[in-house]
Amino acid sequence: MNPLIDAALLADENSKLSADLDTDYAALGEQLQRQGHDIDQLCNTAAQFGIAIPSWGVGTGGTRFARFPGPGEPRHVFDKLEDCGVIQQLCRATPKVSLHIPWDDENPTEMKDKAQSLGLSFDAMNSNTFQDQPDQKHSYKYGSLSHTDAATRAQAVEHNLRCIEIGEAIGSDALTVWVGDGSNFPGQTHMGRQLDRYLDGMRQVYAGLPSHWRLFTEHKMYEPAFYSTVVQDWGSNYLIAKELGPQASCLVDLGHHAPNVNIEMIVSRLAHFGKLGGFHFNDSKYGDDDLDSGSIDPYRLFLVFNELVDIEQRQPESFNPAYMLDQSHNVTDPIESLMSSALEVQRAYVQALLVDREALAFHQENNDALMASETLKRAFRTNVEPLLQRARQNMGGAINPVAAYREAGYRSKVAKLRPAVSGAGGGIV
Amino acid sequence: MNPLIDAALLADENSKLSADLDTDYAALGEQLQRQGHDIDQLCNTAAQFGIAIPSWGVGTGGTRFARFPGPGEPRHVFDKLEDCGVIQQLCRATPKVSLHIPWDDENPTEMKDKAQSLGLSFDAMNSNTFQDQPDQKHSYKYGSLSHTDAATRAQAVEHNLRCIEIGEAIGSDALTVWVGDGSNFPGQTHMGRQLDRYLDGMRQVYAGLPSHWRLFTEHKMYEPAFYSTVVQDWGSNYLIAKELGPQASCLVDLGHHAPNVNIEMIVSRLAHFGKLGGFHFNDSKYGDDDLDSGSIDPYRLFLVFNELVDIEQRQPESFNPAYMLDQSHNVTDPIESLMSSALEVQRAYVQALLVDREALAFHQENNDALMASETLKRAFRTNVEPLLQRARQNMGGAINPVAAYREAGYRSKVAKLRPAVSGAGGGIV
Amino acid sequence: MNPLIDAALLADENSKLSADLDTDYAALGEQLQRQGHDIDQLCNTAAQFGIAIPSWGVGTGGTRFARFPGPGEPRHVFDKLEDCGVIQQLCRATPKVSLHIPWDDENPTEMKDKAQSLGLSFDAMNSNTFQDQPDQKHSYKYGSLSHTDAATRAQAVEHNLRCIEIGEAIGSDALTVWVGDGSNFPGQTHMGRQLDRYLDGMRQVYAGLPSHWRLFTEHKMYEPAFYSTVVQDWGSNYLIAKELGPQASCLVDLGHHAPNVNIEMIVSRLAHFGKLGGFHFNDSKYGDDDLDSGSIDPYRLFLVFNELVDIEQRQPESFNPAYMLDQSHNVTDPIESLMSSALEVQRAYVQALLVDREALAFHQENNDALMASETLKRAFRTNVEPLLQRARQNMGGAINPVAAYREAGYRSKVAKLRPAVSGAGGGIV
Amino acid sequence: MNPLIDAALLADENSKLSADLDTDYAALGEQLQRQGHDIDQLCNTAAQFGIAIPSWGVGTGGTRFARFPGPGEPRHVFDKLEDCGVIQQLCRATPKVSLHIPWDDENPTEMKDKAQSLGLSFDAMNSNTFQDQPDQKHSYKYGSLSHTDAATRAQAVEHNLRCIEIGEAIGSDALTVWVGDGSNFPGQTHMGRQLDRYLDGMRQVYAGLPSHWRLFTEHKMYEPAFYSTVVQDWGSNYLIAKELGPQASCLVDLGHHAPNVNIEMIVSRLAHFGKLGGFHFNDSKYGDDDLDSGSIDPYRLFLVFNELVDIEQRQPESFNPAYMLDQSHNVTDPIESLMSSALEVQRAYVQALLVDREALAFHQENNDALMASETLKRAFRTNVEPLLQRARQNMGGAINPVAAYREAGYRSKVAKLRPAVSGAGGGIV
Repeated sequence: MNPLIDAALLADENSKLSADLDTDYAALGEQLQRQGHDIDQLCNTAAQFGIAIPSWGVGTGGTRFARFPGPGEPRHVFDKLEDCGVIQQLCRATPKVSLHIPWDDENPTEMKDKAQSLGLSFDAMNSNTFQDQPDQKHSYKYGSLSHTDAATRAQAVEHNLRCIEIGEAIGSDALTVWVGDGSNFPGQTHMGRQLDRYLDGMRQVYAGLPSHWRLFTEHKMYEPAFYSTVVQDWGSNYLIAKELGPQASCLVDLGHHAPNVNIEMIVSRLAHFGKLGGFHFNDSKYGDDDLDSGSIDPYRLFLVFNELVDIEQRQPESFNPAYMLDQSHNVTDPIESLMSSALEVQRAYVQALLVDREALAFHQENNDALMASETLKRAFRTNVEPLLQRARQNMGGAINPVAAYREAGYRSKVAKLRPAVSGAGGGIV
Repeated sequence: MNPLIDAALLADENSKLSADLDTDYAALGEQLQRQGHDIDQLCNTAAQFGIAIPSWGVGTGGTRFARFPGPGEPRHVFDKLEDCGVIQQLCRATPKVSLHIPWDDENPTEMKDKAQSLGLSFDAMNSNTFQDQPDQKHSYKYGSLSHTDAATRAQAVEHNLRCIEIGEAIGSDALTVWVGDGSNFPGQTHMGRQLDRYLDGMRQVYAGLPSHWRLFTEHKMYEPAFYSTVVQDWGSNYLIAKELGPQASCLVDLGHHAPNVNIEMIVSRLAHFGKLGGFHFNDSKYGDDDLDSGSIDPYRLFLVFNELVDIEQRQPESFNPAYMLDQSHNVTDPIESLMSSALEVQRAYVQALLVDREALAFHQENNDALMASETLKRAFRTNVEPLLQRARQNMGGAINPVAAYREAGYRSKVAKLRPAVSGAGGGIV
Repeated sequence: MNPLIDAALLADENSKLSADLDTDYAALGEQLQRQGHDIDQLCNTAAQFGIAIPSWGVGTGGTRFARFPGPGEPRHVFDKLEDCGVIQQLCRATPKVSLHIPWDDENPTEMKDKAQSLGLSFDAMNSNTFQDQPDQKHSYKYGSLSHTDAATRAQAVEHNLRCIEIGEAIGSDALTVWVGDGSNFPGQTHMGRQLDRYLDGMRQVYAGLPSHWRLFTEHKMYEPAFYSTVVQDWGSNYLIAKELGPQASCLVDLGHHAPNVNIEMIVSRLAHFGKLGGFHFNDSKYGDDDLDSGSIDPYRLFLVFNELVDIEQRQPESFNPAYMLDQSHNVTDPIESLMSSALEVQRAYVQALLVDREALAFHQENNDALMASETLKRAFRTNVEPLLQRARQNMGGAINPVAAYREAGYRSKVAKLRPAVSGAGGGIV
Repeated sequence: MNPLIDAALLADENSKLSADLDTDYAALGEQLQRQGHDIDQLCNTAAQFGIAIPSWGVGTGGTRFARFPGPGEPRHVFDKLEDCGVIQQLCRATPKVSLHIPWDDENPTEMKDKAQSLGLSFDAMNSNTFQDQPDQKHSYKYGSLSHTDAATRAQAVEHNLRCIEIGEAIGSDALTVWVGDGSNFPGQTHMGRQLDRYLDGMRQVYAGLPSHWRLFTEHKMYEPAFYSTVVQDWGSNYLIAKELGPQASCLVDLGHHAPNVNIEMIVSRLAHFGKLGGFHFNDSKYGDDDLDSGSIDPYRLFLVFNELVDIEQRQPESFNPAYMLDQSHNVTDPIESLMSSALEVQRAYVQALLVDREALAFHQENNDALMASETLKRAFRTNVEPLLQRARQNMGGAINPVAAYREAGYRSKVAKLRPAVSGAGGGIV
């Protein structure tokens, strides 16, 4: 493995912070011990946490109005993998990369080698039937897997099968299918027939799945369709995964729900009925804002992990959710956002591990709502920063990843190699 | 049958309006004929439409802040039945009454006789485990069918079985179960275990169902629980009905969803998977506002019926949804609101019958979104008022029910018999 | 004026429909007469209604995910003006075009001549400081008029002044300023200082306004900024217009509000405090969906016009709102959508004219909520289609604009002249 | 002052916790020192924080469906004051009580003496024109200060003046006016005229204000009116306060906004334009849920205080917001909820004091969104529990108020004196 950030620089950065970390780690350890927790053991558990980086996430995102690229935008999947390598080198919580086809449709062996050289491997594959590609025969303007035209549907199925093929070649074992199919007008589609067509296509994709693969379907309330969406919520998503079979399960993106919806309850319900597949993490204030995880409502993120830890502890055998960040970085350096977001998700996980589940069950049984709430809040209030820092340090990462990254000047270095990209307008022009 | 509004007065009222109605009916008939519709046939179809009145709906509603009763509030189920009798006499679209136990727990034979004398019969029974009754052993403060305490759950099951018993005695054939169970704090309940307890109780209720009965479960996002609700959305509702068995299906209340949710799509999904049980109709702007049907968003009501008519025409054998109004009349005479709301629902149904489904399917197949939308809008724009008036007139009802009701002075008559009720404060005092 | 659709074809199309229109117009006239309305007079009033077309609206829109252009996309402002000419020729309710700078920054005299030749004139100018242009010195990535950098702010002011200059040259008399300035993270901006900077810049723009010009500021809750937006709602918008002076007033876009917000009430409030400037019409189900006007909630559109007609009748001297369509046409032919949307807005206006305002005031005074609601519903239920058709016919337009447009084959004709555009990806790539 | 919780018991409870507190306080102090904060000084600042308790908050709340009282419900204002006395004795952050008329309309001298004996004083008075009282001449069913009937409006004005009179007698210096006036149907009220009537009435109330008093107006999107509300949002609220004069300002209740609204931005705007009066604190997931402060979204509460501390530091002379808890305790002991909620608000305040405002301003100026966000998150992540505990301990309160309260058995003691209340139904019966 060939470190992208100079090891000496990293050690130097860490050395500046390690004395204070020792102090804070000891104080936190003492406090946790009083609550019955072994901080070193928690540190090990935290170290095993991993969340995938989407390859497209390392590029600057945009809105329909505009996109404002930054310096050093990755040119292709190999640049993207390097950026992911930096992220993993510094924060040690992102060992996998999730590719998007056709954006990342390069030679599989080369991609695999590149990843390996960076200490990375591949997570779920992502298909794209929400855009038209230059060489594409049938347009997805009016839908893809649920299109009224059979040839268009066949093309979309074919594309998904091709994603599996590439995935097999690089060691992935899952396919995520998100479609934008829906409608913009009442009446535009027959909602029942559209679902039937979608299911028919997905059955063909499912049939092409290797036996050790998983298929993730993803629901979303709206956007890019603004009146109806074929997989609009977890209810439809569950029924689809149920129809497809045991290898299919549901992906939850935190920004894909109606306002005010209780997302942690959806997590609980999907797990209850055996169809919780995984997560696309991000945060949102209004819609699918794709903001940095934990930046808007960190307690909600904690409550999601409170469910996940509960499920993990009750059903350890079957518990295997796929975690990925899915964010749009419009005003930050994507590498910085992805590092700090991965840490926010890890933080929520560790805080959820601190919940006194015996006490919680007792308060629940006795309808002591105040103490039940307080049991969660106490875990959430715990500042686990020293624990997370130590976990990174133990694994060879950075105590403060963003500071180390800035000190290393990675962005300006790649900006010299990668040509500047002009700010393309969004979809409205 | 003993008409509550004097037949001569009614005839007199109708006679004032019948000449204009003739003119408008003829003009509409001519216009519909050009579109391939026979107005007389539509008139007959409209006449067969029926929607149940909830017994509690004839009393003035309230909020947690206050309740402002009007004159002549019904004292008991017999007064309520009389009010329902007036509604049905004048608008001829509300032949059934839905009772609520224990509010209407009177002698079944007397209730049945009273209803019969008014030309009414009974729709689904409604149980109440969201309030404590004076003689009740266990409190529902922390839940009912999903309570952590087994005795409380047993009491709730018992109450539902009692509702079936009363229903059997009066000729009902369905039970609607809505519970307020949920939580007000993250952590207050274990969401998975709470659902298990709920399902366990419901299985006992289901087991007590006569073979020709149906069981309706109803989802609601929030209120009275403000953090989580055990049957929070159609996804949970579907899974519950599925677990229970073929006699169970889902009730959709138009005000029980998250903001912006596409309700007509939920109707389509539930029908698609065989679990659409029926509706509680009302309108809402913010939450479960329980406003008069069609008063806020009449096009949404039409779109719901557009789905219903589509389902009815494609699956006529299995199509049998239960329709009920479920509104809170805080600032109107409840009888007037129920009459005009029943007519709004009937209007949406008749407008949906006017949709040119062949053209719609053609536009959908060809992705002609504009013409598909226009096909729906054209039906919705049709002013079917003369058709609805004629349907009522044909059945002996009032051309203008509210005007006839006011002219008859029913409210002031019953106000003399029924003592004034003082404005009780809402829940907050 | 040089008609773009052949006059003979148009006459032929109209002749097919005119007999039925005569019948329906007579029936409607008779019905309206009974309610005290003169249909011919209403027809004249309808004919005077005008709503501007945004030049960019005639191109296919898109989302951040993708854009799917159709055949014959306009290449430049002259193509756009031709498309607007067709719209106006057929529907006779869209005499003005609203330009966007720099997208339409061509020779003013040529633009003016072209417009004149098509029977068009120019509405408000629209500035663009939410995108970076190739030749631009300072980026708007972090804001424009409210940017922390003085030079960037000056550039944005300068651009707005340039828009006024162009507008003066083509006979416009208003400037609409919409900015995307805001933030994506709590803490990213100091919300008070950001507003101060915005106000400071806007004061400079205001100072450059000719004395007969108006300045419209537009609020929007979110997008492209996803945590905070500098002009987030009508409250901020009002205060800004108030600070700026009498030539400034507020623009209301129907899709720019929080879920469930009562938009007609905002219209009432802005008019009440003298700052209602105008509208960007469209429809929405979730956010700023920019769907076709009246396609999702036609009653809401009617309720907006119910306020407007009320204001118009009470304050006729000062009433002068600017109306524009602002929609994104992703799945329809933009010309068709703009024609039918203009007619939907006109329809709502005419229906609002039918409200019996004397009766309404009486019911309001007497708290007869049911009859007040019914008074509005009666007007809304009136199918004014024959009236709108006759108004168009009288002015030389098409009885059925979409049918005439399709018959004329305009789109395929221009598709031969205008090169095909490939589907550019949205902002996320 | 006569302590309600035995001083020896309290000392005993504190002594159990003080050793661990010493350790944690020292560790936190060391950590804060590194960041440039003096923990003892922060402790003093925290000790000066006060938030009022609403007298009605100590009783169990309810919904329109039901109310489930607990044991020992306060019978009258004197019981309520005792409960408030316990709260203040233990948590030392709630020195004032806010009365509600007519619920608390008892002899002023006796109330004042009682309060004094408990170490309490009085905050803002609250009027009630949203319910009808037994002896009331005119009903508020259709509105109060904005009613179409002049006599009803006069009665509402009179009631508010009476509240001022009582307030003067007990040492209050502010009046909070919240009305439920609005409408349930489009058309029910003329929104402009309704506002005029409201303003006219409020001007009379304002005129009756002693010169040292303040008048707080409160906006709310909906409930109990479900179509429109006369003071629906901060925009209307601002304009009303502006019309009334310098003694009037706006109250922000965290649960009174549309979904997704950025409340901290409203705080910023109201302060910017000089009309931020104060807060009704609570938390909400769906609507005006009146849940415990900080129980659903603690980061939002922090962001509100981040604005408040910023305003306080920039405009210390004019900064004087009124803080009150306004919650409905349906499933907890109200005393426990009020204590823990007061501490949550205090916690958010202290965390906001930790924000490095110099660094924040630097990051804002440089558009370093990630570091700006991180600056806020770092303060929020700090576990200030030891600081809050020490502040209470220093003032003679409880280190752990809920534990001390439970140990003291206060609830069971008062349950012996105060008769059990049966669970009255909510407004719907």
